[in-house]
Amino acid sequence: MRTLTVDLAERSYPIYIGSGLLTQTQLFAPHIIGRKVAIVSNTTVAPLYLQQLREALLDYDVSEIILPDGESYKNWETLQLVFDALLAEKHDRKTTLIALGGGVIGDMTGFAAACYQRGVNFIQVPTTLLSQVDSSVGGKTGINHPLGKNMIGAFYQPQAVIIDIATLRTLAPRELSAGLAEVIKYGLICDEPFLTWLEQHMASICALDEDALIKTIEQSCAAKARVVSADEREAGLRATLNLGHTFGHAIETEQGYGVWLHGEAVSAGTVMALEMSKQLGWLTEEQRDRGIALLARAGLPVVPPKTMTAAMYLAHMAVDKKVLDGQLRLVLLRDLGQALVTSEYPATTLESVLNADYAKITANI
Amino acid sequence: MRTLTVDLAERSYPIYIGSGLLTQTQLFAPHIIGRKVAIVSNTTVAPLYLQQLREALLDYDVSEIILPDGESYKNWETLQLVFDALLAEKHDRKTTLIALGGGVIGDMTGFAAACYQRGVNFIQVPTTLLSQVDSSVGGKTGINHPLGKNMIGAFYQPQAVIIDIATLRTLAPRELSAGLAEVIKYGLICDEPFLTWLEQHMASICALDEDALIKTIEQSCAAKARVVSADEREAGLRATLNLGHTFGHAIETEQGYGVWLHGEAVSAGTVMALEMSKQLGWLTEEQRDRGIALLARAGLPVVPPKTMTAAMYLAHMAVDKKVLDGQLRLVLLRDLGQALVTSEYPATTLESVLNADYAKITANI
Repeated sequence: MRTLTVDLAERSYPIYIGSGLLTQTQLFAPHIIGRKVAIVSNTTVAPLYLQQLREALLDYDVSEIILPDGESYKNWETLQLVFDALLAEKHDRKTTLIALGGGVIGDMTGFAAACYQRGVNFIQVPTTLLSQVDSSVGGKTGINHPLGKNMIGAFYQPQAVIIDIATLRTLAPRELSAGLAEVIKYGLICDEPFLTWLEQHMASICALDEDALIKTIEQSCAAKARVVSADEREAGLRATLNLGHTFGHAIETEQGYGVWLHGEAVSAGTVMALEMSKQLGWLTEEQRDRGIALLARAGLPVVPPKTMTAAMYLAHMAVDKKVLDGQLRLVLLRDLGQALVTSEYPATTLESVLNADYAKITANI
Repeated sequence: MRTLTVDLAERSYPIYIGSGLLTQTQLFAPHIIGRKVAIVSNTTVAPLYLQQLREALLDYDVSEIILPDGESYKNWETLQLVFDALLAEKHDRKTTLIALGGGVIGDMTGFAAACYQRGVNFIQVPTTLLSQVDSSVGGKTGINHPLGKNMIGAFYQPQAVIIDIATLRTLAPRELSAGLAEVIKYGLICDEPFLTWLEQHMASICALDEDALIKTIEQSCAAKARVVSADEREAGLRATLNLGHTFGHAIETEQGYGVWLHGEAVSAGTVMALEMSKQLGWLTEEQRDRGIALLARAGLPVVPPKTMTAAMYLAHMAVDKKVLDGQLRLVLLRDLGQALVTSEYPATTLESVLNADYAKITANI
């Protein structure tokens, strides 16, 4: 087992990474303050792992809150089910919520913990690669609004994150790939050596080799933890974590939540950011193609949906959280392993990127 | 004008108290970071004061969000109207929400600010005595749940609180009295000299004498600010601010939100806490009666609804946020001007207090 610490002064917390951690009482106990615990999971994950987790929690009074599965349920109505259950079962301020599932469960449980009685403890037990490397680190919680993703939420840190890589054995290959979009992102924005390591080990990772997975997750969490520790409230540096996300969110929202997986939309969005960085003269064509090739080898889409028009992107990007006083800031690369956030680019370049023929660009990679 | 500072390190903020502050641009400008502002008010307050406030904000792009008036609307559905408007009018992370109204508007606007895009700025402009002396200080925000008051919320501090006492001239006398319940509470829990001052000046206060009002509000805010600064997250001391509230919440919830005003329920609840403190031998009968008499002179009810049974109180108190691991902690007085929070009292005393004949106790006061 590997242990990382996310360093946020009095809100610091550990991330445990290993195989078979789900049943290890001694990992959970130090992070639970009262006698009551509520496990929040969904209809897909609960049948697979809820029983194992309950075995680690025999000493506690445990409620189970099982939500419907999917991004389309990441909304107030579903969150209300959590509050209903907590109140009906008389959970008080000393309760601990445990999120058992992917990013949607983690985001909703974290937001529920942030709001329930103005804040209770919670522990993240992410069961997808995406949530293990991304949403369980950094304290972003929230729900979607019909007019935009993650528009309602809070910055709220867990007491601990417990990552059991054994849960990846039941993950659909498409979901594994979606997680790899964020892994590759860390290499692209801040860790060129990791990018090279990923190019060498992508086959082992896709075959679920334990050592390769632990290194992948550890390196990704460490990269994110470094960025988050330096910039908890997203004043600047943290925004680089959104490489590909501005374009990606537009794709997700326009297609309807859940049609494209988050990681898939981010992958296509990253291709657009790579192309824009190339058009601005910051990446060579070869560097752009290295990024695209790695995304493709991870089983990810590298061409945005053909139905997306420039007008659609611009409409969605106008309400993106990265708009400040009407200026759209984008995360781009000035080199492989070096991201920057900027609103200083010619409007014509953005237009060209939104209208580019990605089928053609990626055809020979 | 008087200025107080609530001292919370990097989240410290000023409270301005005076007459005619609503139109003073220079009080608002330092606390607004972007060009966009959203005023959140209700159908009662907006026709009276929205135009004045707009005059202070001529330099900004102002949205108006007018909600239905009343505690019964302090719920998710109404909050959603705020998010809908903010997103429809493309407010970004640099927007500033201004709460113009009483405690319900302040609590909901504060919670909306805490959650919108994971946190934006807000300014409180409380227009009722209750919100001026209570809910605009301390950062408690939130909404009600069908199973309990203020169960969903956040601790979130405003950039500034601007208290224009001129707004009290249009306040219903019943609402003024409700605010005085909290004012008297500060005297009871931590400031015996202020209690004596209130006994001497209650007539001037009820007649809306400006000097008396400013002193009343300043002293109350200062008392609350002292307590909140020392204990922002309600670990201990802050809980003393809930004198009368545990019984009061039970009354409010059982009667249905809005039938009794919050301050009215707190007044009856305070009488119960005074009686319990007397039964435990901490207050003399004379001290208990001084507290009751002052509440009565402020125009407040001192007898709980006849329909409330001990079982009703206990059922509601079991989900109260002051329950920790099943133990009900109560705020009581060990002397006038000295509160304590304790779960160490005989169950029979609580029972006796819940069943006492308050009409008889208060008959000769």
